[in-house]
Amino acid sequence: MSGPAIVLVRPQLSENIGTAARAMLNCGLTDLRLVAPRHDWLQDRAFAAASGADKVLLSAQVFETTEQAIADCERVWASTARDRYMVKPVEAPRQAAQSMKTAIESGHKVAILFGPERTGLSNDDVVLSDTVVSVPLNPDYSSLNLAQCVLLISYEWFQATADAPIATMTKGASDLASKAKLVAFFDHLERELDACGFLRVETKKAVMIRNIRNMFQRAQLTGQEVQTLHGIVHELVTYRKSKGE
Amino acid sequence: MSGPAIVLVRPQLSENIGTAARAMLNCGLTDLRLVAPRHDWLQDRAFAAASGADKVLLSAQVFETTEQAIADCERVWASTARDRYMVKPVEAPRQAAQSMKTAIESGHKVAILFGPERTGLSNDDVVLSDTVVSVPLNPDYSSLNLAQCVLLISYEWFQATADAPIATMTKGASDLASKAKLVAFFDHLERELDACGFLRVETKKAVMIRNIRNMFQRAQLTGQEVQTLHGIVHELVTYRKSKGE
Repeated sequence: MSGPAIVLVRPQLSENIGTAARAMLNCGLTDLRLVAPRHDWLQDRAFAAASGADKVLLSAQVFETTEQAIADCERVWASTARDRYMVKPVEAPRQAAQSMKTAIESGHKVAILFGPERTGLSNDDVVLSDTVVSVPLNPDYSSLNLAQCVLLISYEWFQATADAPIATMTKGASDLASKAKLVAFFDHLERELDACGFLRVETKKAVMIRNIRNMFQRAQLTGQEVQTLHGIVHELVTYRKSKGE
Repeated sequence: MSGPAIVLVRPQLSENIGTAARAMLNCGLTDLRLVAPRHDWLQDRAFAAASGADKVLLSAQVFETTEQAIADCERVWASTARDRYMVKPVEAPRQAAQSMKTAIESGHKVAILFGPERTGLSNDDVVLSDTVVSVPLNPDYSSLNLAQCVLLISYEWFQATADAPIATMTKGASDLASKAKLVAFFDHLERELDACGFLRVETKKAVMIRNIRNMFQRAQLTGQEVQTLHGIVHELVTYRKSKGE
């Protein structure tokens, strides 16, 4: 499915264009449009920030006005954090991604507008959109930079269109052992395994310890179970010593 | 609800610690833990990158080992993109956030491990976790920088614990007018309103145009409706002219 166009309106810094391009490609988006960028967006610093997402930068289209950048689109979202006192639908990114998916499936071309770093979109730009998309964040600290905002909204697009999430393999557990208790058991066991020669092959020692740790780690042991394991190791060692080995 | 601790293992760049702190505070998280950071994390460049999230940087705890950083935690997630060939549950951030919420509601302390910028977490660190968290991204380009990864996982935490999303106010529509058609109508209408003197108060002109545009914008007009509006304006003007005004 062809995703939404990302329209950066009057971006001020080339690095941010690069970082936005990277975030787009992370989420399978490639249609980057720039409205009156302050600087050349094909600078070294933009490519450095793009970190390999060069094709997005190289294929970016440039327009003089926001109107021109969205001329071929039927549905436009405007990303903004501030209330603009306009009667306009507002969606969180997760809802917006679903709405965009529906629009695109209906054959509509979709764009998302992002404003300049310092000021955000002007009201004249917001007016050109059908819907505002606003990221729910900590109300006491919601300042998000341009590329982070592009990332979060693009991420929700990708999640809305990607296959079902990876299957889980978790178990419920109460009274879980703290990691301090677990590591104390690892230390105890490995000390004894070292002493009895179980870890004598130096080249295999690290991987053996890792496999043993992972086996117990995976078990989501309770505090009581870790105590039991300490007891088991202690008893095995005592029995060995009592036999004079 | 007290959120998960964010544990940056051997971070290499102070800027990334600052940007991660900003992303954390955006999502209401404040418990930052650093394992053997390469540089002093209280540098100017870290505070510049933190962009006001100073309190997260200033309250960060530093540890020599990952084991020490998670000693008080009962449940630990490890953020990693690569397959580690370990038998270990894997969750996407959205599932992980739900699992973390359940764990925290059960009284467990939760931490999320993030590895160094270049290499990611070592296998010895991943082994210390209960669950792997892996961000579903474009399989052809999934390289994510440290702070972006912290942002996406923290964002999902915040969404899992935040109130219900903002209500929407959208309408279904087919045959929507393209923005080019809509802007052409705005131009037509505003030209005629200018000519007839409706926009004669220069100080109010910009806000009047904006309000008029927004009113039509909000209507999610079809192509046919825009044609009708062109006709209405044309007829009104012709009638006025025929009366010799």
